[in-house]
Amino acid sequence: MEIIQCLLTGDRRAIARLITIIENDGAEAQEALAALYPHTGRAHVVGVTGAPGTGKSTLVNELAKVYRQRERTVGIIAVDPTSPFSGGALLGDRIRMRDLSGDPGIFIRSMATRGSLGGLARATADAIKVLDAAGYQTIFVETVGAGQAEVDIAKAAHTTIVVEAPGLGDDIQAIKAGITEIADIFVVNKADREGADSTALALQMILDLNHSSHISSPDPRWRPPICKTVALHGEGVGAVVEAIGEHAAYLRESGNLQRRERERVEGELRSIITHKMARSFFERVAEAQFDSLVDSIIRRELDPYSAAARLLEGWR
Amino acid sequence: MEIIQCLLTGDRRAIARLITIIENDGAEAQEALAALYPHTGRAHVVGVTGAPGTGKSTLVNELAKVYRQRERTVGIIAVDPTSPFSGGALLGDRIRMRDLSGDPGIFIRSMATRGSLGGLARATADAIKVLDAAGYQTIFVETVGAGQAEVDIAKAAHTTIVVEAPGLGDDIQAIKAGITEIADIFVVNKADREGADSTALALQMILDLNHSSHISSPDPRWRPPICKTVALHGEGVGAVVEAIGEHAAYLRESGNLQRRERERVEGELRSIITHKMARSFFERVAEAQFDSLVDSIIRRELDPYSAAARLLEGWR
Repeated sequence: MEIIQCLLTGDRRAIARLITIIENDGAEAQEALAALYPHTGRAHVVGVTGAPGTGKSTLVNELAKVYRQRERTVGIIAVDPTSPFSGGALLGDRIRMRDLSGDPGIFIRSMATRGSLGGLARATADAIKVLDAAGYQTIFVETVGAGQAEVDIAKAAHTTIVVEAPGLGDDIQAIKAGITEIADIFVVNKADREGADSTALALQMILDLNHSSHISSPDPRWRPPICKTVALHGEGVGAVVEAIGEHAAYLRESGNLQRRERERVEGELRSIITHKMARSFFERVAEAQFDSLVDSIIRRELDPYSAAARLLEGWR
Repeated sequence: MEIIQCLLTGDRRAIARLITIIENDGAEAQEALAALYPHTGRAHVVGVTGAPGTGKSTLVNELAKVYRQRERTVGIIAVDPTSPFSGGALLGDRIRMRDLSGDPGIFIRSMATRGSLGGLARATADAIKVLDAAGYQTIFVETVGAGQAEVDIAKAAHTTIVVEAPGLGDDIQAIKAGITEIADIFVVNKADREGADSTALALQMILDLNHSSHISSPDPRWRPPICKTVALHGEGVGAVVEAIGEHAAYLRESGNLQRRERERVEGELRSIITHKMARSFFERVAEAQFDSLVDSIIRRELDPYSAAARLLEGWR
């Protein structure tokens, strides 16, 4: 495929087109992914998540600038699972484009939910492969919001940064929503605001708790550092870059890189198989039969589980 | 099944046990759901979602108190999709229990993610059925956080309330994360705080925008009201109860109740079928074959989509 040749030379239009092909999720997408897949596996993928209003986008922009100063190329994928109907991330995107555009060493793409959450997680994982094959060395995957969606998307990352900020209402709730369990690095952004110290302290306490209670912690030898930043002024961002580097080194030396990679691939394979099976089933099932079972469920003559069993019986 | 007989009389232990059985997702769960399903379809289900720190739990508690004054029974299901590893919602739960416990007309249950998000959405939908069959008239489903997870869970509700609060960082982001598109009713809670008016105004603007741009709005004849509350002092909560009643009447009179019910059942049936197919596949697939394909993917000899195709080919 010619487009793959263009991609491997870093052609920006090829990258953009391939990600669109992936989002459309047709046969062409699978062909393209098969062709580019041997060229993946070189990038370090950094997930950035946290509650709304913590300043994630600003932080990612500033991190990208530091990497560019060090002559590393940067890909940014901004995922917005919060806006399933009208698409999203547009406002932040425009601000970002103005700030970083014109640098050929940076590629930015936003992705919004289309239909299912599983679909978004798969499309994000595939967009990472495209940027990886195109030669981007550090790839940020930024998610708006904090929930299981972000956990699923974070699974594609080598290093996950959870961003907190002081003054976001109830501290414990905000931190809980920051899904502390998946953090490799914490950032307390907007650290010039009142309450930054108590946010950092609350995180320390959570880490102490986790350390004493989680016997089966995923990475017992890595204690997530807590970095304070004022991303708007670039303050403290260098220290976050160092922390990412240290975490990458830890992953390589501890053997956890291989373990994470295997878990990631297993999860991805399971998700693809489930999606393929379901699609093939719903393409073949007779609409009339499906509709008549839905009618029976609505009339309370049949429960959904029994209806599902009937449909599956007929299929085999 | 004896437990179903106990459930239908409103026995609290039977309810609790049935929800646990559902969470464990075995054959017993499907048998129980089949038995109780004919007794469902009477409750009005109200979803309550919004960003962390908006005071959702307090609002739901106060709403429950108003319904109890009007002698309607209330079920509360608190869903926490943000804490996939350690379970969650415990703190809020204890405060709530202290406040509402002792009233036999209220049943409270919290549910946390175990494994997949789809699993949580299914378990929540089934827990609603249990409370519905047990005779609870109004059922609140409260989700912590705001994201696609909440959208999926909200699909089980007849009326969805999106809670905002002033001063949660960047207003537009906070509101976006409040997933305005799914709101039937907006609540600006903590309305005694600075910025409450501008939050309400921002919501008005979003509604005006939606009204002019969304030609295919799901409910063109229903404009979501914006209620201001100080839930901590019970202020404005009565107006929210009125709004819920008006929305329920609108759904019945417009025929949208049937449309939503059909969509809900279709989605539920699809989700159950997908889950059953995947489970049956992964129970039967040879572990050695799966592992060797994972190895090939990690070595970049094979891409995940081709590997999935091979596994599925062997299965048919």
